[in-house]
Amino acid sequence: MSGNITLNHGEGGRRTHELIRDVFMKKFGMVEPLTDSAILEGSLVFTTDAYVVDPLFFPGGNIGKLAVCGTVNDLAVSGALPEYIACSFIIEEGFPVNDLLVIVDSMAEAAENAGVRIVAGDTKVVGKGKCDKMFITTSGTGMLDVAKKYISTGERIKPGDRLIINGSLGNHAIAVLGARKQLSFTTPVSSDCAPLNHMIGEVLNNCNGVLFMRDLTRGGLGGVLNELSEIMGNGIVINESSIPVDEPVRGVCEILGFDPLYLANEGKVLIVSSKGMENQILDLLRQDPLGKDSAIIGEVTADKGGKVIIETASGGRRIIDMPSGVQLPRIC
Amino acid sequence: MSGNITLNHGEGGRRTHELIRDVFMKKFGMVEPLTDSAILEGSLVFTTDAYVVDPLFFPGGNIGKLAVCGTVNDLAVSGALPEYIACSFIIEEGFPVNDLLVIVDSMAEAAENAGVRIVAGDTKVVGKGKCDKMFITTSGTGMLDVAKKYISTGERIKPGDRLIINGSLGNHAIAVLGARKQLSFTTPVSSDCAPLNHMIGEVLNNCNGVLFMRDLTRGGLGGVLNELSEIMGNGIVINESSIPVDEPVRGVCEILGFDPLYLANEGKVLIVSSKGMENQILDLLRQDPLGKDSAIIGEVTADKGGKVIIETASGGRRIIDMPSGVQLPRIC
Repeated sequence: MSGNITLNHGEGGRRTHELIRDVFMKKFGMVEPLTDSAILEGSLVFTTDAYVVDPLFFPGGNIGKLAVCGTVNDLAVSGALPEYIACSFIIEEGFPVNDLLVIVDSMAEAAENAGVRIVAGDTKVVGKGKCDKMFITTSGTGMLDVAKKYISTGERIKPGDRLIINGSLGNHAIAVLGARKQLSFTTPVSSDCAPLNHMIGEVLNNCNGVLFMRDLTRGGLGGVLNELSEIMGNGIVINESSIPVDEPVRGVCEILGFDPLYLANEGKVLIVSSKGMENQILDLLRQDPLGKDSAIIGEVTADKGGKVIIETASGGRRIIDMPSGVQLPRIC
Repeated sequence: MSGNITLNHGEGGRRTHELIRDVFMKKFGMVEPLTDSAILEGSLVFTTDAYVVDPLFFPGGNIGKLAVCGTVNDLAVSGALPEYIACSFIIEEGFPVNDLLVIVDSMAEAAENAGVRIVAGDTKVVGKGKCDKMFITTSGTGMLDVAKKYISTGERIKPGDRLIINGSLGNHAIAVLGARKQLSFTTPVSSDCAPLNHMIGEVLNNCNGVLFMRDLTRGGLGGVLNELSEIMGNGIVINESSIPVDEPVRGVCEILGFDPLYLANEGKVLIVSSKGMENQILDLLRQDPLGKDSAIIGEVTADKGGKVIIETASGGRRIIDMPSGVQLPRIC
């Protein structure tokens, strides 16, 4: 790798994977990709994420809520019980203390909702113009039931296993875009930003059918499905008409040319269910308000090519590729 | 608290403590101050720090080495064995990939020297002008010998106990300042940035006299001594002529009006030794190249006022107050 860093390197698509492979994995001597979450010796899971969302406040949340929920969800989708969070603030000189108080309040509230404790923190202040208002990095630790380690690797997935998501796609990205561009939507769009650990916990505690989970953040469902097919070496087929997308989000996407499959979410998870268990998982998800619109959207195929195919509403089939450019920068 | 965030809020002095007390502790419902390091249930220690040093490269190190060493040292001074690090990058669009490679190389080297593993990471890219080149947040976990938990609380310190530092003060801050202002010193000044965990480990493994440790970063020795006297409720007296300061650093301080006691270090630790054990600790420290200039610099007094007093080289006595303003912003 050479040249300069571009926005594409931060968007969770092809260039991000190049950066991870050619810089971080190579230099840090890793065999496994350097993801934002690692399972350590014993059953400790350790995760980190930087949040640079612009603007800081958007319908349904703010950078503080986002940072706590994002870290909780990272831990939860690895199958771990989130426990502790450390938060690191980089603040631009002149930032209003009142805004900081609102953001920190949201972090405290999100932590309480998720049942995690914020235990360590750091604050750096940089001069006016040296950062864009505020960035937050949250790190988290959680405990994994070692018997369920296969959830994070996806090693038990087989052809025929079913794909489930817990609700409609794209609300977070469109809510942030709306706040950034001060768009007025006829029907307001709110971020889906929420801690998913209780919903996921209910599923894991009451059913053994979960084979893999991943949160649908940067890169969206399209990015995650491509990562998954790469991990498995198998193909995936999803059904467009089964994928929930709220009407206002669909409208904005049509006007602005976005594909909801690639939009970031902050309260959505892809679950791979072993075949035959999908309805039990669906029922468990739907008992939680965060999963009321859960849907089975497709399945793993025996295709060794490893492509992700969508069957469109009009009866066609097309490939869903790994996202390679920026749709919307700085949505998390 | 109200108004706006100032550079002083990030400098580890009085305003930083106000911010921690009035915002973070209050909102996060904490009894203990929210420090960058927390001891969790069991023996897990968890720490986080953001690095915003300007410039990114300076004699003796760069932001990557600094971030890894800083987190290793945070863990080590709590008495823990540092084990795992997660790193989060915020990078400005257009940042040269070659510079990133050098920084990541330094991180890998520092991690190897310290014997820790970098296990998780995240990268966000923001537009040109939205951050100052690069910020890194490192978080770390380590294991604490629970029998030595008293080291992090300082609860066993008594009047008469001795204060030791492992070498001369201020080199890091002056090296960064020199690089930032492109000053040419007649004798070059290099940052002391280094992982201290092996040196500290040798002391802890071979001697039971360590009652407290703290790394002398933001706020310098003056800041740490004031925190310590606040924790203990006892006074401290230090002897100016016993405090090592390298000649070039002393010279720059005299010209620019800095006090080396408040300058940041990145490879220095304050150790409180129980009375009578100080020479054994000194011998152990001096066996390590990072501790060859170790010195006993003072002691804890029975004064309940809790002031930090320095006996000056000229025979006077003055109070060393908590730093209240910025000497040098963005040195870490």
